[in-house]
Amino acid sequence: MADNLVVIGGDAAGMSAASKAKREGPDLDVIVFEKDEWVSYGACGLAYYIKGEIDNLEDLISIPAEDFIDKREIDLRTEQEVMSISPEKNTLKAEGEGETYEKEFDKLLISTGTSAKMPQIKGTDLEGVYTLHHLPDAEKIRKAIKEKNDQASIGIIGGGYIGIEMAEAIKPHGMKVHLYEILPHVLDSFGEETAEVVQDHLKEKGIKLHLKTKVKELTGRNGQVSEMITDQGSKEIDMVIIAVGVEPTVELAEEAGIELGETGAIATDEYGRTNYQDIYAAGDCAEYTNLITDGPDYVPLALAANRSGRAIGQTVAGSPKPVGKVAGTAVVKVFDLEVARTGVIDHDRAKKSGFDPITSTIKVPSRAHYYPGGDPIRISLTADKETGRLIGGSMVGREGVAKRIDTIATALHSSMTVSELEYLDLSYAPPFGPVWDPVLTAAKVLNGKIS
Amino acid sequence: MADNLVVIGGDAAGMSAASKAKREGPDLDVIVFEKDEWVSYGACGLAYYIKGEIDNLEDLISIPAEDFIDKREIDLRTEQEVMSISPEKNTLKAEGEGETYEKEFDKLLISTGTSAKMPQIKGTDLEGVYTLHHLPDAEKIRKAIKEKNDQASIGIIGGGYIGIEMAEAIKPHGMKVHLYEILPHVLDSFGEETAEVVQDHLKEKGIKLHLKTKVKELTGRNGQVSEMITDQGSKEIDMVIIAVGVEPTVELAEEAGIELGETGAIATDEYGRTNYQDIYAAGDCAEYTNLITDGPDYVPLALAANRSGRAIGQTVAGSPKPVGKVAGTAVVKVFDLEVARTGVIDHDRAKKSGFDPITSTIKVPSRAHYYPGGDPIRISLTADKETGRLIGGSMVGREGVAKRIDTIATALHSSMTVSELEYLDLSYAPPFGPVWDPVLTAAKVLNGKIS
Repeated sequence: MADNLVVIGGDAAGMSAASKAKREGPDLDVIVFEKDEWVSYGACGLAYYIKGEIDNLEDLISIPAEDFIDKREIDLRTEQEVMSISPEKNTLKAEGEGETYEKEFDKLLISTGTSAKMPQIKGTDLEGVYTLHHLPDAEKIRKAIKEKNDQASIGIIGGGYIGIEMAEAIKPHGMKVHLYEILPHVLDSFGEETAEVVQDHLKEKGIKLHLKTKVKELTGRNGQVSEMITDQGSKEIDMVIIAVGVEPTVELAEEAGIELGETGAIATDEYGRTNYQDIYAAGDCAEYTNLITDGPDYVPLALAANRSGRAIGQTVAGSPKPVGKVAGTAVVKVFDLEVARTGVIDHDRAKKSGFDPITSTIKVPSRAHYYPGGDPIRISLTADKETGRLIGGSMVGREGVAKRIDTIATALHSSMTVSELEYLDLSYAPPFGPVWDPVLTAAKVLNGKIS
Repeated sequence: MADNLVVIGGDAAGMSAASKAKREGPDLDVIVFEKDEWVSYGACGLAYYIKGEIDNLEDLISIPAEDFIDKREIDLRTEQEVMSISPEKNTLKAEGEGETYEKEFDKLLISTGTSAKMPQIKGTDLEGVYTLHHLPDAEKIRKAIKEKNDQASIGIIGGGYIGIEMAEAIKPHGMKVHLYEILPHVLDSFGEETAEVVQDHLKEKGIKLHLKTKVKELTGRNGQVSEMITDQGSKEIDMVIIAVGVEPTVELAEEAGIELGETGAIATDEYGRTNYQDIYAAGDCAEYTNLITDGPDYVPLALAANRSGRAIGQTVAGSPKPVGKVAGTAVVKVFDLEVARTGVIDHDRAKKSGFDPITSTIKVPSRAHYYPGGDPIRISLTADKETGRLIGGSMVGREGVAKRIDTIATALHSSMTVSELEYLDLSYAPPFGPVWDPVLTAAKVLNGKIS
């Protein structure tokens, strides 16, 4: 067992690793460097704070910093930034309260997370232009919204799930919300069939959708953003939120000679190890292995971060545990809809990985035909035509979607064929679905096209 | 391919087989004998009709009889009862409109369903004593309830899911509802941990629970039931519903020399075939193979009936398809609760099948800790200690249970170990669960106990 574990970055992956390492190896010195004052917060909850469903930003903190220090005996150093790593010497340089000092490590975990991507356009530095990434961002956005009147217009750049969650968060405050997406569909990774339903719903909820629209510039008056210029014309605007995605924070690793993978995130092996024996990477700065393609994948999602951090903590404490593969399973709430995806949906991506993809989409009621309430679920399954292997799926509906996607995700973990999927003995009662669960019906239909 | 398929019994299994056989083999003569006037109705919806959530009994019909005849070209003979089968001669005797006639079959499907079990006590023939099995039963019960006043008391014998659904259905009509269960817990097949939560909820909803109570006799006044006599004392009662379970309707098969299995239902092979080459059995009168124990199982549930019927239809039409194995996955709504189970939960049963069972139960919130609303989910997983193989699970909670059980059911289909379960990449968003899905947390905890 190592003598110490040093962690850079105190969010999901970092704190999971620190906690697990200390629990499994109480004699281990565990030191965490975090450049901000917050650790272990639920970034996925920021939109709900802005919406007003969560009152205090502090509520998003899973475990307070003091608890890590006092109860878990972790040497947590907030507002201490790591400036460089020397992989050959097993040391790093940190800076905090005006001082710079060196720290030796036996094992190092890099869990530096992501930063918000910025579009290469003019005007992103104007007042009234925000990104949503950290706790203080959410505070600023909520404050700015409250100061605006009902006639104000807000432009959101990016129709991925963060952009859409922001649209939902802001709309109830009364502002006009314009959502700009450069692609023909929102929620690109969820597939076109699912995205169409989401788009209709967004319009129903009063969101102005600008698809296939490239934002070219933001212009302002007195330093305050006032106009959104796109390739489809321009629009007066009082506030802008940029949500074009995130990118892994890898500068520190790169400068130290730690290898990046083809996705641009830090390359790791099945135990989360980088090209240096003693250095691990986990969370949103690291690459994972995709369950379907068996190739590298970049999936900056909470479960993968928590799981890989925890596994590395255990490995460092002496009992090696793989970080696990990712299927890219995700769910997002869009106003009244649940929208979910897992696996490989995109045909180009599937082809690159050697599959011959086929997708089938059906609409199935969410309850027994005679049971009141309920709403159709639109469900798409994608399989490899040659082998019949299920490779991905997506769904959208008002109920019964968020956790139904997990049936498909679980099937992906066992490399099930669509024929096997058809035979699953799934639950049935009239309030929760038809006798043939939508997943089974979708499998039957897709199977009919394959065989 | 056969020339004809004769089906005895026009409910889920029978009509699925008839429809599929005709679709796949349009030249096939498909004849269905149904002794009642109804076919293809949702028995699972009867309680909701009694509750008043469904207005018309006709709404429970999936497909009207005329459609089977006109659109699907099935020779559907309602109110025609099959009296005997001659397996050696491939003929049967049917009776209808006062006439008896013989019919030859190439292939025969017995899908005679179940009948309600009757306790061996005096007084079950009194007025005011009901079973819930067919459409007319539901009509009678609904009518009887409407005639009672608020001060009336109803006794339900049996705390399985039908008894509980009846309690929920009747309570809103204002009557006092007493539920009698001979075992220490309701919902026996769902496991004690889950049953406890259900029991508390039933009490909360005003149902008087009489556990470990054996009903010994029903007595009456002027032929009308008026008292329930149990081993714990007696109780004035105005109406009784018997819901002590169902038993397969196998007399016809038994008399014809068709073998029954150890569960008392008709024994079948993987294609649903009986000990006679040309005779199949499916639905609630037939035995299936359990996915976990690989032994015979009796699971009179809708999906198994539909699926096996459909498979047999396809087999008879010329392309053999197995009927599939059952995990016994089930979900039931109990007032505000969703209650679900799958696989083998009972330790005695597990031991009989050669497992060394261990169960772990935890309580996990149904949403992210900071997201408003939500309620704990209680989840139990059972595994084999020696191999770590998952063998069953159950859950209960106000939300997120009905379809979350399918994750476990799907894992059972792939013979996953608890370690593998821990690695599933399941969906996460704050409104729908914590980062670590309850299934994953339960797997982690159980795994900690095994390894």
